[in-house]
Amino acid sequence: MPSYTAPTKDIQFLLHDVLKVSEQSVPGYDEMDRDFTSAVVEEAGKIASDVLAPLNAVGDTEGCTFENGVVRTPKGFKDAFEQMKEGGWTALDCDPEYGGQGLPYLMMTAVNEPFVSANMAFNMYQGLTHGAYSAIHAHASDELKAKFLPKMVTCEWTGTMNLTEPHCGTDLGLMRTKAEPQADGSFKITGQKIFISAGDHDMSENVIHLVLAKIVGGPEGIKGVSLFIVPKIMVDDNGDLGERNAVSVGKIEEKMGIHGNATCVMNYDGAVGYLVGEEHKGMRAMFTMMNEARLGVGLQGYAQAEAAYQNALIYAKDRLQGRDVTGAKNPDGPADPLIVHPDIRRNLMEQKSFVEGARALTYWGANLIDKHSREHDEAAHGLVSLLTPVIKGFLTDKGFDMAVQAQQVYGGHGYIEEWGMSQFARDARIAMIYEGANGIQALDLVGRKLAQDGGKHVMAFFEMVKAECKAHEDERMKPFTDALKNASKQLQAAGMYFMQNGMKNPNNALSGSYDFMHMMGHVCLGLMWTRMAAAAYSELDAGNTDTDFLNAKIKTGEFYMARSLPACSMHLARIETGADTVMGLTADQF
Amino acid sequence: MPSYTAPTKDIQFLLHDVLKVSEQSVPGYDEMDRDFTSAVVEEAGKIASDVLAPLNAVGDTEGCTFENGVVRTPKGFKDAFEQMKEGGWTALDCDPEYGGQGLPYLMMTAVNEPFVSANMAFNMYQGLTHGAYSAIHAHASDELKAKFLPKMVTCEWTGTMNLTEPHCGTDLGLMRTKAEPQADGSFKITGQKIFISAGDHDMSENVIHLVLAKIVGGPEGIKGVSLFIVPKIMVDDNGDLGERNAVSVGKIEEKMGIHGNATCVMNYDGAVGYLVGEEHKGMRAMFTMMNEARLGVGLQGYAQAEAAYQNALIYAKDRLQGRDVTGAKNPDGPADPLIVHPDIRRNLMEQKSFVEGARALTYWGANLIDKHSREHDEAAHGLVSLLTPVIKGFLTDKGFDMAVQAQQVYGGHGYIEEWGMSQFARDARIAMIYEGANGIQALDLVGRKLAQDGGKHVMAFFEMVKAECKAHEDERMKPFTDALKNASKQLQAAGMYFMQNGMKNPNNALSGSYDFMHMMGHVCLGLMWTRMAAAAYSELDAGNTDTDFLNAKIKTGEFYMARSLPACSMHLARIETGADTVMGLTADQF
Repeated sequence: MPSYTAPTKDIQFLLHDVLKVSEQSVPGYDEMDRDFTSAVVEEAGKIASDVLAPLNAVGDTEGCTFENGVVRTPKGFKDAFEQMKEGGWTALDCDPEYGGQGLPYLMMTAVNEPFVSANMAFNMYQGLTHGAYSAIHAHASDELKAKFLPKMVTCEWTGTMNLTEPHCGTDLGLMRTKAEPQADGSFKITGQKIFISAGDHDMSENVIHLVLAKIVGGPEGIKGVSLFIVPKIMVDDNGDLGERNAVSVGKIEEKMGIHGNATCVMNYDGAVGYLVGEEHKGMRAMFTMMNEARLGVGLQGYAQAEAAYQNALIYAKDRLQGRDVTGAKNPDGPADPLIVHPDIRRNLMEQKSFVEGARALTYWGANLIDKHSREHDEAAHGLVSLLTPVIKGFLTDKGFDMAVQAQQVYGGHGYIEEWGMSQFARDARIAMIYEGANGIQALDLVGRKLAQDGGKHVMAFFEMVKAECKAHEDERMKPFTDALKNASKQLQAAGMYFMQNGMKNPNNALSGSYDFMHMMGHVCLGLMWTRMAAAAYSELDAGNTDTDFLNAKIKTGEFYMARSLPACSMHLARIETGADTVMGLTADQF
Repeated sequence: MPSYTAPTKDIQFLLHDVLKVSEQSVPGYDEMDRDFTSAVVEEAGKIASDVLAPLNAVGDTEGCTFENGVVRTPKGFKDAFEQMKEGGWTALDCDPEYGGQGLPYLMMTAVNEPFVSANMAFNMYQGLTHGAYSAIHAHASDELKAKFLPKMVTCEWTGTMNLTEPHCGTDLGLMRTKAEPQADGSFKITGQKIFISAGDHDMSENVIHLVLAKIVGGPEGIKGVSLFIVPKIMVDDNGDLGERNAVSVGKIEEKMGIHGNATCVMNYDGAVGYLVGEEHKGMRAMFTMMNEARLGVGLQGYAQAEAAYQNALIYAKDRLQGRDVTGAKNPDGPADPLIVHPDIRRNLMEQKSFVEGARALTYWGANLIDKHSREHDEAAHGLVSLLTPVIKGFLTDKGFDMAVQAQQVYGGHGYIEEWGMSQFARDARIAMIYEGANGIQALDLVGRKLAQDGGKHVMAFFEMVKAECKAHEDERMKPFTDALKNASKQLQAAGMYFMQNGMKNPNNALSGSYDFMHMMGHVCLGLMWTRMAAAAYSELDAGNTDTDFLNAKIKTGEFYMARSLPACSMHLARIETGADTVMGLTADQF
């Protein structure tokens, strides 16, 4: 069975040596000193290793069941969820007004990572609740907040997000679920929603569904969509539970992975719903929490890669097979460990350099979200909006690829379920799809974010990269700054191509959107590695004696710059071929 | 449920317009005229669509069972297998002396593709039998051949390949299974083998295991390995079945995919075995059939991508979601079909251009195998030996990637098992691992094949590419020849880098082996597309009126050249960074 250990040292390095949180002016960051973050992450890591990781395979094998209208989670999930609630882990960054601890989102992210690495399907129950909490917190009336949030903060009640219907996912304008206004100000919700993660289960007293629906008589299409709270069990004015609402589970889906999470078809048959925010402004309410939700999915991508990598590494050090061509490394044994072989190294280094770079990017994103929400820093908001599709799309694509590569280290043992490597790949696969399929992320990036606010955020990004290169002009940083400069230039050239050719035919830009997203992902990770290497050198210069760790950071970064950034020239070349070959066939010619 | 239709037109185009089989001097090819190959492939396609494809999901869902020592295949498999036997499909390219039809291997390949696309797990029972047949046919005594081959040709008895043991896969020198010589010339085989595909089942009277084992007292390591026939049920001199041999199934594995094929732990407890070929020359006996077996796995890679692509295409034409940014294409409907969107196109074109190129490469490989086996063409043998690791490694890596991309077209529907797209990806995943994991293919290519016979085969390959470019110097072929020339030059530069830097440190070559394999894969597919485009133009010039099909070939090829060949510059850049960053960490620093 796979094991998991929280990468506490890496997290601490990021928070304190790279992001230097205690030096930031963000309200709440002053509490995040080394001792505090270390204690919190260590404790989260313990729960991840001891409680959640052992349930990961159980969740996969057993899955959820649906019998007589009742959804049951796999054995052990309920107890583990109780531990999460009791430990206050669900309330970490929630508003103290509703019982939360008010910690920064960055701290929540650092805690979330071990939980997701250890058991992604399990963590989704809390993750979805947090998403619903955020939407209600941002948009609902004080009355609704007071009624629902305190129990959602503690996960006594969990939450869901209901967007997709059988005939529409991305194109929510086609939505058919309807909301009929009632005399008491509530609405009757009728329709079917599918792919509802954590849609129902046996770990909480109530489930609070957030449902997108169209108010009868409202505008056509996406402009007529509103957001509603629909509780599974009605809540009276004293906060006590009453009757069942007219919402039920139609079935649960058989899926490729995340078997421990119940993916439900939800049927709303005139269920009582409460409007969140304004009528017909449902999409806006959903979008305000999009950056946070998508960053969370990006985290899932690299967190699964991290868990898979840890196990691939153990196997590579343990499994004896073949000999080092430059001379036996384990001459007294029957063979050398796999890790002596250059192609196994290449594979492991790709995993390691991706995961550490991805973690840095995600934490930086969380930091920017804090700057916006706690300091009203609009530049930070613009930047994280630009980075969000990259974090979601690139990190989940690569996270899956890396989980697949980790599986490959095991040979045939990676394909059988016994070793657990298949599950990492199967679970990671969903992150490329939900919360906006990655093609949609690319479209969001190229079609919206690049030009947002007159292109000022992407220009700020390029300026930031330039400044970072300027700041480290010493010889030893050249492997970083040279590669980053080059990749950044190529990314700018791609943006220029879109501007010059997208005018006459938008397909010239859209045909290259996926490549651009990946290219920008590499530039972002290149930037992260430049920062991390500079931080590592600066620690070494200051006499930090953990030289093995710090030198490994620098060398891992050098690997990424040398071996991964060359992808940018490939993406640029593809982009510059435009739409001609992409759109060359008629639909019938396929 | 996914559907499948054999790409008969594409296969005919390859056989007759590109490979021009009837014009080749290979014995047996004269029978392969258009009518004959069309009739055979059509018929195979019918079985694939009507019999095998409907059982694909059944096999996945139900899987094989192991109870009271008996392995059972999923419902319907046995009847389908009977149909395969009765139709003579298992005997197509087998030696007429043992009841085969003596058709070329190329013809067998063209028939195999639809079978594998429709149901990979099912086809493995026959595929493994064919592999065992080939090894016995090439190396066993006439007596053993007469005893075992006729029933293996008809698949009344199926076959297996037993190499892997719990502690050794790639490094077979560590093998522990032992063979003790008996007075009657037979051997007693004792040991445990794992990951034995089609190791046991209920579809044939007998299973003929080919087992690698070490004769007691023989040389240490890989040089002491011999090959044995070990029948599940003993066969007497009249060919009648007798008692059970001392071989049994320990368990069957739970796997990520190919659930319809029983992957067995096989226990040999002093089982009677018969030596195949010479003592201690077991590896050589296995290697002679390696090109064929690995080509068959490469075929599995792209055949799964083909099946996944067909369904992604249907979905992309059918599913209405969003609007074409350049103007509605389905103005009377609620939305346009997915296929109008540039990023969906990009995705589909990547799948289509890969699969068609991969098919061409595989058929060319099969053609070269025929040239060697039927004409004793040693140059063809050298070339296919060089191409084999590329066909196996590149086509299975990309085949899996493309199946994953096909799944992505479906959004959330691709992740739930109901639509069958998950199965294509899960099944395709094994092809990257078995028959030599792809890292081993890369090692075989760079460590052995490049330098084989003084490098003459790789030089012949480059000459062939050059000649192909020379042969098509007209303007309209420039998108092909320019890109191919460029990619081929980059591949040569990579080879040069290995020569210059691999001497002082072999890790400089081995660290780039995986990149080289992919780079060579792209050059091979570029060569295939150049040939196919030239053939299409030549057909158009000759007045062939199927212009939609022929123009689509050309445009699909242009897509591949423009959008896929740029990967070569990335791989070259990676390769030229050598071993430094790959091998930079100590094992403890990971």
